Amino acid sequence: MKIVLIGAGNVGYHLGMRLHEVGEHVVQVFSRTPNRAEKLANKIGAKACSKLSKIKASADLYIVAVKDDAILAVVKELASNGLQNKLIVHTSGGTGIGEMGNYVAHFGSFYPLQTFSITKKANWAAIPICVDANSKKSRKKLKKLAQKISPKTYEIDDEQRAILHVAAVFVNNFSNHLFHIGATICEKEQLPFSILKPLIEETVNKLKIGEPKAMQTGPAIRNDQKTIAKHHEYLEKFPDFKKIYEELTTSIQNNNA
Amino acid sequence: MKIVLIGAGNVGYHLGMRLHEVGEHVVQVFSRTPNRAEKLANKIGAKACSKLSKIKASADLYIVAVKDDAILAVVKELASNGLQNKLIVHTSGGTGIGEMGNYVAHFGSFYPLQTFSITKKANWAAIPICVDANSKKSRKKLKKLAQKISPKTYEIDDEQRAILHVAAVFVNNFSNHLFHIGATICEKEQLPFSILKPLIEETVNKLKIGEPKAMQTGPAIRNDQKTIAKHHEYLEKFPDFKKIYEELTTSIQNNNA
Repeated sequence: MKIVLIGAGNVGYHLGMRLHEVGEHVVQVFSRTPNRAEKLANKIGAKACSKLSKIKASADLYIVAVKDDAILAVVKELASNGLQNKLIVHTSGGTGIGEMGNYVAHFGSFYPLQTFSITKKANWAAIPICVDANSKKSRKKLKKLAQKISPKTYEIDDEQRAILHVAAVFVNNFSNHLFHIGATICEKEQLPFSILKPLIEETVNKLKIGEPKAMQTGPAIRNDQKTIAKHHEYLEKFPDFKKIYEELTTSIQNNNA
Repeated sequence: MKIVLIGAGNVGYHLGMRLHEVGEHVVQVFSRTPNRAEKLANKIGAKACSKLSKIKASADLYIVAVKDDAILAVVKELASNGLQNKLIVHTSGGTGIGEMGNYVAHFGSFYPLQTFSITKKANWAAIPICVDANSKKSRKKLKKLAQKISPKTYEIDDEQRAILHVAAVFVNNFSNHLFHIGATICEKEQLPFSILKPLIEETVNKLKIGEPKAMQTGPAIRNDQKTIAKHHEYLEKFPDFKKIYEELTTSIQNNNA
């Protein structure tokens, strides 16, 4: 399949690398930052491009991996450049596909449910890919492509994808911030954050043997008021962290009431 | 070293198993629940006991692995049973050692910084052990024992241990609750929680390549108000989760302001 990749950020970069790796033909890579487009394009035998008007109409699929609030403007411009009958998909968890229909005939989403960093190789064997499209034919095409990239593929509609995105914010963005809070407290007190890393790893390993609810431990679930009071007192110096401590403690207790 | 283990819950159980594994001599296992004491004692060649008054004074070390608010009462009773000159330690992250000095001459802490479940084998190669005691001699003794159990041992005083315990609540108890929130949202919407597990694993894997602050992604740090508003709307059906969403979003944004 001939594919044009629009966007060479975290998602675009790793998707481009993987598409090339599984033998798909990425013909063009677009980024408004020419260097970024070239860097990826050179790695995967594609042409780089930094103007949407230079994108060719000869590909089978256009993957728009740009910031959520830029997606529709990009799709609109692609349509006005003669791509209105091409299959165009976005890679966003939090964006519906319906509005793309104002500009193009065939549209959908191709959402890898993972957090990517340019500096870290993606392990595609463990990345679920959620696909959707406005026709059965397009969905089938996307599903087939997804299956080449990952063993875990799902057909997920707009509503389901939006919900997965909320859940993903909790388990990824927010838990990462809790790790940051742990690191901040250690740093403030000149203790090595590395001392907490085995605990963090085990917290996740435990998900292999049971539901998180069954794995809950600590002062909140024990309703250990003495310890909770000590922790509140310590957290006076971190007002944001204290509020988070209180809300999470309350939620753990409500959840087990 | 002859050791008596007081408590056969999550910590006591795994500590007992490990002490036996590395060739230490656990002579007695105490639990108020006779079955529990017996189960562990049988596995590690120790005598089971369900009365504190039956604990013998012939051991070199007494490890008190009971609930935080029961520690002092246990130490007091041990002292009144003739153990007032023995080395007695607790395994609690959130409890100081000083008050033990009201009852016994030699005291300290032996704190494995990990979350344990009876059903999951502990990986001691990755469990930091924090030791402290009221004398250099006792500290040395505990450190030597800790080094047999784990390659990662630290001398950590009461204040540092209390701080590590706060940090541990954030990175372990609270992140586990965020995983539970993810699972609850998936369940409510009939989506498989397993779809989020690779994302959770990657969130932790990323700590190997950089500090959590540098790894932060998502709508909060992008200040993507449109997505945040959508998520608030969805979370109307989970008021606790909505408050947590708001506090964590605010904290991520303050932290990067």
